[in-house]
Amino acid sequence: MCHACQVSIDKSATTAKTPGHNEPLTPTCLLGLGLIGGSMMRDLAAAGEVVYGYNRSTATVDAATAEGFEASSDLIATLQRAEQDRALIVIGTPMPVVGRMLDAIAEHAPSCGITDVVSVKGAVLDEVRARGMEHSYVGAHPMAGSAKAGWEATVTGLYDGAPWVITYDLADECESAGLAVPERWLEVFTQVSRLGKALGSQLIPATSPRHDDAVARISHMPHLAAYAVATVGAGGELPISLAAGSFRDGTRVAAAEPDMVMSWCENNAEPVLGALDEVIALLTSAREQLATEGTAKELAQLGFEARGRYENRPVQRPITQLTVGESGWVTKLREAENVGGQFELL
Amino acid sequence: MCHACQVSIDKSATTAKTPGHNEPLTPTCLLGLGLIGGSMMRDLAAAGEVVYGYNRSTATVDAATAEGFEASSDLIATLQRAEQDRALIVIGTPMPVVGRMLDAIAEHAPSCGITDVVSVKGAVLDEVRARGMEHSYVGAHPMAGSAKAGWEATVTGLYDGAPWVITYDLADECESAGLAVPERWLEVFTQVSRLGKALGSQLIPATSPRHDDAVARISHMPHLAAYAVATVGAGGELPISLAAGSFRDGTRVAAAEPDMVMSWCENNAEPVLGALDEVIALLTSAREQLATEGTAKELAQLGFEARGRYENRPVQRPITQLTVGESGWVTKLREAENVGGQFELL
Repeated sequence: MCHACQVSIDKSATTAKTPGHNEPLTPTCLLGLGLIGGSMMRDLAAAGEVVYGYNRSTATVDAATAEGFEASSDLIATLQRAEQDRALIVIGTPMPVVGRMLDAIAEHAPSCGITDVVSVKGAVLDEVRARGMEHSYVGAHPMAGSAKAGWEATVTGLYDGAPWVITYDLADECESAGLAVPERWLEVFTQVSRLGKALGSQLIPATSPRHDDAVARISHMPHLAAYAVATVGAGGELPISLAAGSFRDGTRVAAAEPDMVMSWCENNAEPVLGALDEVIALLTSAREQLATEGTAKELAQLGFEARGRYENRPVQRPITQLTVGESGWVTKLREAENVGGQFELL
Repeated sequence: MCHACQVSIDKSATTAKTPGHNEPLTPTCLLGLGLIGGSMMRDLAAAGEVVYGYNRSTATVDAATAEGFEASSDLIATLQRAEQDRALIVIGTPMPVVGRMLDAIAEHAPSCGITDVVSVKGAVLDEVRARGMEHSYVGAHPMAGSAKAGWEATVTGLYDGAPWVITYDLADECESAGLAVPERWLEVFTQVSRLGKALGSQLIPATSPRHDDAVARISHMPHLAAYAVATVGAGGELPISLAAGSFRDGTRVAAAEPDMVMSWCENNAEPVLGALDEVIALLTSAREQLATEGTAKELAQLGFEARGRYENRPVQRPITQLTVGESGWVTKLREAENVGGQFELL
């Protein structure tokens, strides 16, 4: 199934496109074939796109190859092929390896566009900037996943309907400074947008700081809060015995592996600290109101209304259609970002 | 269906018991026919027990009467009947009305045993003690409910399998002081235990302070935490747009009506303050560790382990069998409380 046009495609027919189908994607080179990269490989190959990848583990490479995918544990050879293809490179490794991947790309595939699927964006952008590679980099955060990891966990359709955040920091900065956005970057932005669309995702524009602030608020901080509530709640046999639905759901994500949650928080410390400070301030105010006035209704009302805003969010995000590079297109991205909307390329 | 012996019983057969069935319950007089009291009425009547009730609202009384239940909006007449029957009176009104109900009972039904189904226990016990009625009072907290309220929300089987906390403060204090537990109180404890068992509930002993501390930890504080997380998370259109499962589940109970949550917190302020202080301290420590060491792994590990203790709690609570008033029975209650266990009367 091609997610872009919802037409079934013969996996072997890599060149013959269904009539009316968009142009084929730029070839995709995946660095890392875990849940995120591997699932992408499945969908792109099924859609007849050119896709191949690198993984450090030969077990993963063997498993992917056995299923007919093009995978290699030779990073340099993979990047050399990407350079030849002018492929879009997708960095799908854990954050600590991103810098090494960028170094290898700079050396072996300097002509390629680069994106990544790491769940924080500022930390990746810092690595990109440290190497002067921002003209060929557009970050992404496909917000899909599962509790499992590794090639064994890969599935088709993982990104279908999922939010896919695309960063546009360089365009935002150029626009603010009255400078033209580099053509090279516009090309990569188009490639990354088309990749997300081909996988069926909903493209949501965000600058890296605003993305990182948002995920600190709706994911990283809530995980820390769940850890704290779980610790206090499960503070004895009687409360554990009496715990019911509110505790079960409120601390569900406290079952998340500390290492995974820490990889988010450690690479997104400033926004997480900001969100934590806000939560601590609210709980402290509630504590003071309860101690002095015998009620905590200010926080209760705020939280009830906030949950209402979340529950009443539109079923379908507002959609902005745009042409990359046209006059005013960055303003359109900013406006879409402000309302949490998505965009589509015309 | 009789929940006690799992045998179907003809609702009309109020005297003929299935062979082998326990003795009929003491007649039950329900003050308040909302979700909690009304659902109790349905099950008790279906089991052939004598049950009748008072509700302030004539609409509720009419609805209950139309279904064949014995309901009245005349409090004094209802209590006079209870006095005649030596009924067990169940206070199923909101907390602010409990004092007035106790006054009416003292005047019109002084021979009756008293229990209640309010979700905090210390505040009710204070009202009982202020009137010197503790010899005929045993508190209860059937931990069942739904998001709905009122007679329309009543259902059969609401208590089947639910935890039903029974307080034993007076016995605990007498035991500690080397005094005999009053016979009158032992009788009421037996009546309340049999009521909970007849409704299919799992009887869990707890002193009022330990009950209130437990529900502050696993329900009241988590509601306040959810309000705070919801407020910080839904702090803009972009985070609302990107919010996924961890936010959805972690803030589910922030949709609870502030008035309801405040009725718990306001009547359980001290334990809620204690639990809030613990959560604030944990989040503050995590904040400090993240700011200074770049990680918050201490909290993550604590919370992960706490959630594990909750998830790995026994499927079936340990069961203690006891005879009310026998030598050492209060010790058995304390031991059951310490492990969050349940008890059964021999």
